[in-house]
Amino acid sequence: MTKSLPPFDRLVEQFRRLPGVGIKSAKRMTFAVLDMPSEDAQAFADAIIAAKAHISRCKICGDICEGDVCSVCLDSHRDQSILCVVEDSRDVAALEKMREYHGLYHVLGGLISPTDGIGPDRLLVRELLRRLDGKVKEVILATNPSVEGEATALYIAKLIKPMDVLTTRLAYGIPVGGELQYADDMTLFRAIEGRRKI
Amino acid sequence: MTKSLPPFDRLVEQFRRLPGVGIKSAKRMTFAVLDMPSEDAQAFADAIIAAKAHISRCKICGDICEGDVCSVCLDSHRDQSILCVVEDSRDVAALEKMREYHGLYHVLGGLISPTDGIGPDRLLVRELLRRLDGKVKEVILATNPSVEGEATALYIAKLIKPMDVLTTRLAYGIPVGGELQYADDMTLFRAIEGRRKI
Repeated sequence: MTKSLPPFDRLVEQFRRLPGVGIKSAKRMTFAVLDMPSEDAQAFADAIIAAKAHISRCKICGDICEGDVCSVCLDSHRDQSILCVVEDSRDVAALEKMREYHGLYHVLGGLISPTDGIGPDRLLVRELLRRLDGKVKEVILATNPSVEGEATALYIAKLIKPMDVLTTRLAYGIPVGGELQYADDMTLFRAIEGRRKI
Repeated sequence: MTKSLPPFDRLVEQFRRLPGVGIKSAKRMTFAVLDMPSEDAQAFADAIIAAKAHISRCKICGDICEGDVCSVCLDSHRDQSILCVVEDSRDVAALEKMREYHGLYHVLGGLISPTDGIGPDRLLVRELLRRLDGKVKEVILATNPSVEGEATALYIAKLIKPMDVLTTRLAYGIPVGGELQYADDMTLFRAIEGRRKI
């Protein structure tokens, strides 16, 4: 390749918009597309369109799903009295992989972050409050232990306070298999603070 | 996300086929597509189709280009007496970036690799020999200094030998800015072997 080829550059630009993809990776990916048989490139393009067309947000919890309501919200065997509030669908996937949580979820679709101009109105907070209609006895605030995650959890906890609902937060401390000497100060502090009687 | 969603999984699979993309990156990229506005996802899919449709191989040198013949082969100002033989288009891009080489190129489209079942017939070797019609005075074999690159260079050098063409190979040695103590044995050997009078 000697001069810039507009269709090449446009595809490089598209790949660069993906998370974790720099200019070199984007070029490598573009060459990979050019090396594919035409059917494979078509299948790739179709998969993008299909994912966008067939996957939407659950009308109840905000998680991604096919159709209007996700399988967890439709499942009457799940514990309807516990709601686990998370930042996005990836967190639901992580918690489901564990197979130990049987309650419902609520996906906020982000975290409150004034520096990025994201206020509570951009998240599904109103939808969360609407779900607290008496059946829900506990809300687990499972946002990440970051500045934004803590702020969002505190904000929601304050809103829920007047209601007759138990509000909990995940335990933070040394990860299982981790080592004390490599833990950062904040994690150690949380581990000491949250110590439990054995 | 609680259960596997076929359109989601299909897009993850497509991303995984790209070089350097593992399962975690592929999922992250799929979520990024879901978070895009529909127009952006459409533009991404269109860019894949367009790159595949509008970029082809130059009929003369095998480099990627728009149209039948690439801009280098069409450029009468380039030195028609030197041909630089490279593995693929990325090598042409690297050499052109330098702006010091003004001859022509020949892109093999791969390297001879018996373990991968790639013989000389899978590369544009016949097309290279056809270009050595008397006008070309020098062929620079600029394949990578790998086992396959060396084998391919030697194979082509042997084919060219009976013709009245100077065959050269790039200089290999310590990279500029590199340090002797970090160079591998093979590179050091090449640097000693290729030493020049100052």
